[in-house]
Amino acid sequence: MTRDEALALDAQDPLAPLREQFVLPAGVIYLDGNSLGVLPRTTAARVQQVVTQEWGVDLIRSWNSAGWIDMPQRVGDKIARLVGAAPGELVVADSTSVNLFKVLSAALTITSADAPQRKTILSERSNFPTDLYIAEALCRERGFTLQLAEPDELPALLNQDTAVLMLTHVNYRSGRMHEMAALTAAAHAAGALTVWDLAHSAGAVPVNLHGANADFAVGCGYKYLNGGPGAPAFVWAHPRHAGRFWQPLAGWMGHAAPFAFTPGYRPAEGISRYLCGTPAVLSLAALECGVDTVLAAESLGGMTALRHKSLALTRLFAEQVQAACPQLALVSPSGDAQRGSQVCLAHAEMGYPVIQALIARGVIGDFRAPDVLRFGFTPLYLRFVDAWDAAEHLRQVLASGEWQRPEFNRRQAVT
Amino acid sequence: MTRDEALALDAQDPLAPLREQFVLPAGVIYLDGNSLGVLPRTTAARVQQVVTQEWGVDLIRSWNSAGWIDMPQRVGDKIARLVGAAPGELVVADSTSVNLFKVLSAALTITSADAPQRKTILSERSNFPTDLYIAEALCRERGFTLQLAEPDELPALLNQDTAVLMLTHVNYRSGRMHEMAALTAAAHAAGALTVWDLAHSAGAVPVNLHGANADFAVGCGYKYLNGGPGAPAFVWAHPRHAGRFWQPLAGWMGHAAPFAFTPGYRPAEGISRYLCGTPAVLSLAALECGVDTVLAAESLGGMTALRHKSLALTRLFAEQVQAACPQLALVSPSGDAQRGSQVCLAHAEMGYPVIQALIARGVIGDFRAPDVLRFGFTPLYLRFVDAWDAAEHLRQVLASGEWQRPEFNRRQAVT
Repeated sequence: MTRDEALALDAQDPLAPLREQFVLPAGVIYLDGNSLGVLPRTTAARVQQVVTQEWGVDLIRSWNSAGWIDMPQRVGDKIARLVGAAPGELVVADSTSVNLFKVLSAALTITSADAPQRKTILSERSNFPTDLYIAEALCRERGFTLQLAEPDELPALLNQDTAVLMLTHVNYRSGRMHEMAALTAAAHAAGALTVWDLAHSAGAVPVNLHGANADFAVGCGYKYLNGGPGAPAFVWAHPRHAGRFWQPLAGWMGHAAPFAFTPGYRPAEGISRYLCGTPAVLSLAALECGVDTVLAAESLGGMTALRHKSLALTRLFAEQVQAACPQLALVSPSGDAQRGSQVCLAHAEMGYPVIQALIARGVIGDFRAPDVLRFGFTPLYLRFVDAWDAAEHLRQVLASGEWQRPEFNRRQAVT
Repeated sequence: MTRDEALALDAQDPLAPLREQFVLPAGVIYLDGNSLGVLPRTTAARVQQVVTQEWGVDLIRSWNSAGWIDMPQRVGDKIARLVGAAPGELVVADSTSVNLFKVLSAALTITSADAPQRKTILSERSNFPTDLYIAEALCRERGFTLQLAEPDELPALLNQDTAVLMLTHVNYRSGRMHEMAALTAAAHAAGALTVWDLAHSAGAVPVNLHGANADFAVGCGYKYLNGGPGAPAFVWAHPRHAGRFWQPLAGWMGHAAPFAFTPGYRPAEGISRYLCGTPAVLSLAALECGVDTVLAAESLGGMTALRHKSLALTRLFAEQVQAACPQLALVSPSGDAQRGSQVCLAHAEMGYPVIQALIARGVIGDFRAPDVLRFGFTPLYLRFVDAWDAAEHLRQVLASGEWQRPEFNRRQAVT
């Protein structure tokens, strides 16, 4: 493909106007929206309103007058529209890690009641570490075993010992996407429950939790939902499970009557019992602005249209790079059905410095140890010409030997 | 005391300039800083900087360049100065409820190793509900029993069954303050550990965790620390315990090497293992501004000077109200040594509508079910004349029968 052909694709792109929703720094091609989404245009003013008016002037009264108290549910209902959940089924709370602890804990509690002989949590070996750590901790606490496998091995490993199949829908390093419906059906056929981490899915690929008949899900607010650094996360439980769970993080916001100040814990009905402490209002307000940027696509075809563009972007980038940079191995699947909204490449030695050299050119991807160059493509704000230019920068960085400069080889804490 | 005498006290108050640090709405006397502290002058600009520059322009690079990754420790070190902890011992993370789960879990884990026959968590019957809920949940999970008692009964109940004495230092409803050093010594003498909730203490009264030889502590960012609605909370563990704890909320930010992305959980050294998910950067930035407003008192005598003024404010208000409103019972202790930074009054019927009538006059306190009128006094920004005027408004609301108006008797979700 030529650069002019990429420009022509942008000219025909019905989603192109969505880009106007964002503040995009000049000279930057941002391929890291799967780590931290960009700033929506509405966020700064909205956060300022929360700080100066709702907090500064209205003070404590804003819990009622500005609706702070209902934000976890209100923003949750908006996210529900993006992942195939119904209103009232999903809340925003805490971090992805903490929410994973809740849903995995719920799944183990239900298993212990219904099928106490099942003692294994099955997951993917290269799942995001925090998911594995949380599972490891709960296994240790509850007497379960964490079994790790390669993606293709999973169906055959589902058996009478399996309590929970816990997967991140789109793998953070490889970008490989699991078939949620098929794996959920296989897990159910084997008598196991499913926990899905949608960190790299919500706002990036179509998700239909009810369509897949999933059991539990969690997800991240600061990636494709553009909620800002450390934005609160979300949690969903199928209604058939929501009321069966006795929350170990039994904080007052998950109580049936938080402001009755009664000494005994009585969980709220449904998903609200997954709340725990007081919501981080500033961060939640920013998250709502981010979620709104994705919902803005609804009138243009929604997640289906975004997915179509995302696949076209990642295909373009992967094909250009494979043609021009044969020394980089393609880690993410070439098949559309299995690829999330990212392209991952691998190289044993030069992964880290190549990413640094690209960042110096304004092409921001990230490095994931030990060897992955990761490029996220957010169809809300990326153009076809961005994908083309990024591939060309990568070609030049390799061809010129630029990546060998000493300044690109000094490691920082976070990459 | 006359109003002129109150004004004279303000004229002599060496802490008076600290009030200039805050945005205080005109016509408001804010006696709810123990629920949500007021907005510091620096916060709006700082949050805007984080949103528009650090997130908007620098994007993912800010984890390094803006020091986002170190914020939990950096802000934690500042809070440590207010509660008698050393640098590196305290981190900001999650909510008070979640942090309480961590430290209580740690205390039970240590007890199970060192004194497995101890099976009771002892606490105060009128402790803040979320503390009791979290303890109830952990007891249920770990096979412990939650024993509740009145404050005066606590020392006699510490015995060979007690695993943990868990108390909120200053009671949220009564304003009564426990003797942290004496109770900790009594707990240790009985072989038990202590967990202190500093929600109504940090930034309000002097706390010396090392001086009291405490074991664990948690606290709130949005009350006397002025961190904004739902600001993240903090957690401290005595160094003798910090390394012994295997965090059940084993998220990646508490890992020894979060960005090595290794599959097995290896906890960070010391207090950093109490971190879990990605920190809420916007809320954390606001919290830092709030903490700085308290640290600004250090050159004026610090927490000792703030405590002196706080006691004078609460004494003034309590004495004025007791003289003018005999129908209201004083719930908070009249003795300085036992009183936190609040004055609580009780009335079986008119508690709620009186608070609403006061709010309509711009005097903001809060109602805590079933019968408490609660008035928090933050010495950083309250004047003696504010305490005098608030008492006078309360007298007028009662004398005029104003509180009986229908609009003051309609309940809202949050009060």
